[in-house]
Amino acid sequence: MPHLGGPLRRGVWAALLAQLLRPPRAVCVRAVGCHSQVAEAVLTSQLKPHQEKPHFVIKVPKGTRDLSPQQMVVREKILNKIISCFKRHGAKGLDTPAFELKEMLTEKYEDNFGLMYDLEDQGGELLSLRYDLTVPFARYMAMNKLKKMKRYQVGKVWRRESPAIVQGRYREFCQCDFDIAGEFDPMIPDAECLKIMCEILSGLQLGDFVIKVNDRRVIDGIFAVCGVPESKFRTICSSVDKLDKISWEDVRHEMVAKKGLAPEVADRIGAYIQCHGGISLVEEMFKNPRLSQSQLALQGLRDLKLLFEYLTLFGIADKISFDLSLARGLDYYTGVIYEAVLLQPPAQAGEETLSVGSVAAGGRYDRLVGQFDPKGHNVPCVGLSIGVERIFYLVEQKMKISGEKVRTTETQVFVATPQKNFLRERLKIIAELWDAGIKAEMLYKINPKLLPQLHYCEKADIPLMVIIGEQEQNEGVIKLRSVASREEVTINRENLVAEIQKRLSES
Amino acid sequence: MPHLGGPLRRGVWAALLAQLLRPPRAVCVRAVGCHSQVAEAVLTSQLKPHQEKPHFVIKVPKGTRDLSPQQMVVREKILNKIISCFKRHGAKGLDTPAFELKEMLTEKYEDNFGLMYDLEDQGGELLSLRYDLTVPFARYMAMNKLKKMKRYQVGKVWRRESPAIVQGRYREFCQCDFDIAGEFDPMIPDAECLKIMCEILSGLQLGDFVIKVNDRRVIDGIFAVCGVPESKFRTICSSVDKLDKISWEDVRHEMVAKKGLAPEVADRIGAYIQCHGGISLVEEMFKNPRLSQSQLALQGLRDLKLLFEYLTLFGIADKISFDLSLARGLDYYTGVIYEAVLLQPPAQAGEETLSVGSVAAGGRYDRLVGQFDPKGHNVPCVGLSIGVERIFYLVEQKMKISGEKVRTTETQVFVATPQKNFLRERLKIIAELWDAGIKAEMLYKINPKLLPQLHYCEKADIPLMVIIGEQEQNEGVIKLRSVASREEVTINRENLVAEIQKRLSES
Repeated sequence: MPHLGGPLRRGVWAALLAQLLRPPRAVCVRAVGCHSQVAEAVLTSQLKPHQEKPHFVIKVPKGTRDLSPQQMVVREKILNKIISCFKRHGAKGLDTPAFELKEMLTEKYEDNFGLMYDLEDQGGELLSLRYDLTVPFARYMAMNKLKKMKRYQVGKVWRRESPAIVQGRYREFCQCDFDIAGEFDPMIPDAECLKIMCEILSGLQLGDFVIKVNDRRVIDGIFAVCGVPESKFRTICSSVDKLDKISWEDVRHEMVAKKGLAPEVADRIGAYIQCHGGISLVEEMFKNPRLSQSQLALQGLRDLKLLFEYLTLFGIADKISFDLSLARGLDYYTGVIYEAVLLQPPAQAGEETLSVGSVAAGGRYDRLVGQFDPKGHNVPCVGLSIGVERIFYLVEQKMKISGEKVRTTETQVFVATPQKNFLRERLKIIAELWDAGIKAEMLYKINPKLLPQLHYCEKADIPLMVIIGEQEQNEGVIKLRSVASREEVTINRENLVAEIQKRLSES
Repeated sequence: MPHLGGPLRRGVWAALLAQLLRPPRAVCVRAVGCHSQVAEAVLTSQLKPHQEKPHFVIKVPKGTRDLSPQQMVVREKILNKIISCFKRHGAKGLDTPAFELKEMLTEKYEDNFGLMYDLEDQGGELLSLRYDLTVPFARYMAMNKLKKMKRYQVGKVWRRESPAIVQGRYREFCQCDFDIAGEFDPMIPDAECLKIMCEILSGLQLGDFVIKVNDRRVIDGIFAVCGVPESKFRTICSSVDKLDKISWEDVRHEMVAKKGLAPEVADRIGAYIQCHGGISLVEEMFKNPRLSQSQLALQGLRDLKLLFEYLTLFGIADKISFDLSLARGLDYYTGVIYEAVLLQPPAQAGEETLSVGSVAAGGRYDRLVGQFDPKGHNVPCVGLSIGVERIFYLVEQKMKISGEKVRTTETQVFVATPQKNFLRERLKIIAELWDAGIKAEMLYKINPKLLPQLHYCEKADIPLMVIIGEQEQNEGVIKLRSVASREEVTINRENLVAEIQKRLSES
């Protein structure tokens, strides 16, 4: 589905540097069969305190990034909210391989969003990394001859952005997809998809948003009645899709100069695609003398009308805008399409404006499963994809502004000692805590000083400290300290686990 | 770390069939710049009820598989147990890209476990899919100049098994890694890694297990005192590593015939590596006249002795076996190494024996981070990897035997009607439930019959049913039905959410 990336961390200079410092390729090739050289190198390195310096600049591939523990906590919170919404709507989980046979993926995508990552032909099947989660889902449906399924899938997808396309996007990014496959009464599943998008975006508290809705049949109808030759429908559609990035003038120029459309045809299209509104615009389009000549457009409009009825019953019609400029670049859509856009980025006055664009999108694709089925049998599908990277960027920015801190561990108890020679006791105590399911840590030192142990707890925000020393051991007791209040109580050694569990259940 | 795969689902015949039926490659190449043809194809397919049949056999790449909803539920339960153990030990989360610069991965692995998947050179960096999670972790440590970190990572890794290697392994599989990086007092983090492996394997109730422990320095010491030339250490080590798959005779043959070792040297090695036992074997080896001549071996034995002391304090020494045959095929280990093996597969009498081999493994790698650091600075590391595929296979088999069923959805309430023309009401009710955080479903039909609605609930194991009909609507009430007991109560319409929440909190 859409490429919902964020800015890249690494600059061009780093890549250039890497190119300059990188040795000729031959040196990097695997030294298959050179075990003895490898063994010698290993042995040599064992004798020297440090082995030779690496002969390359250390970095992650272009367009990818690591997620630090801090980022992982934020990421997990976002994903949990999204997944619990999908489960609230009765979706089942599914996982598919990171790569597919190349032939499964070809001809499913326009070239708007970058290229596929192909795997090297190493003497087997020709493979490509998946480009989205929709095509693998359709492949799964057809391969297992399933007639209906409501599934969600969360996973990474990979798109090799061509340099001509907007910079600052990730090439590896995470998508959260929800799809309903099956033959059902019109627009009920479609309405649920929009409801899910609303629930997730409201739940994540990203500020106000609007979901633009259109229908591929309406777009094709517009093209037809405006006089676009049928052979140019898809390429003109991909021009229209750029309207949120470039101005109508530039889109028009592309249509006329690059794609050979007559100027008056482009202008006719322009008059339509600058319209947006609610249910009343749907009604208006029904009566539009030119557009109502297209049976395809009328089908789309009828469905949109029904959709708006259901959305009103769901209480979300005010979040939806019928937007004739919405085109969606992916080839496989056949009916209703939608895209959620944030309206008021949650930046405070004076802060950098958080411009993020589309955060979720989807639509109906009734003929994708049939492209995989040996007999061409179709299963109608409708679904949505949440773009986690942009949401993640927003939430991270929000947290930076508010100064909110996150704990990167969940440790509940720290096992400490103020004296020497208490490693044995600490090991016994911490094993007891682990075995009771209590999250516990200690310093990996035989004789740690007390201060670093206290510092560790404060830094890691560990609420409780267990302290064992000579006096405690002699008396068969142990100290329990609240790190925040610095209050200490002495309890019987054998009550340790029970007492900690009581404290943790109360907090 | 280890390749802990399971058997492949698809036979060789399917691959052959695919080869036969696949069109020549040129046909599959992306038709870049052929928009008009694509557009026409799309239009044509819109006119026909079914488009043309696909010209390929539909399958997933060799060595990969989809996880069905049933499998996803089992997978998630296993992963949750593993992750909660990692968090219990204070680990932070981390994520790294699916691929790395090829030069980051080369020379880190022996060729025991198959080849790396390289990405095609599409005019940028040379990339390879990650082979494990350990090397990316070391790269992360060096890249961010971190001196210590306790992290876990769960993710897929990819290994292109060479055909000569044991069949029946996955080429895409999931690993769960826990590692402790940093300069600490000896063997305390190492002991914690073994404790974690015990906690996880006990917690997953996979039957009895043993963790084999050895030390790379002991192995190298054995090789040295037995008379292996230093240049052959690594290749002989990789022969020893095969001892759990092939017999000593075959390993000996490989050493002598293929790798040119003198027969008497091989026999000396054989005498050592057939030993295994507890702490007493460590003591014995200290006094071994030949082995005690190796300072390297003595260092390893001293650490193993300390390790056993700590494992006794953790209460897990009885699960650990000092096994001189354990070699571990990965190049980067420098000290203690370990591998967990299940002893009594949980098959019932008469059932197929569940043979799975190693389910978890790891060790100390003190010089891997330095291979990435520009100044060669090292950060000592120790860690473990849980092989989810094999554990998953076992749990799945156990569930098949016991006939245990899993729910693939979590839906709590189904919204039904026995009469026509109640779609509007059902949509309003279900939106109300969703907005209250209740997991709810309904049929996507305008006028469903009652029986399919009841069947849906029973099949999906949904506990509660909300029923709205003419009578209920007229009286401002609604029926709540327990699907299992078939008991129905009538409640006021406005109390619906509260009543359901009460019921769900009680169950």
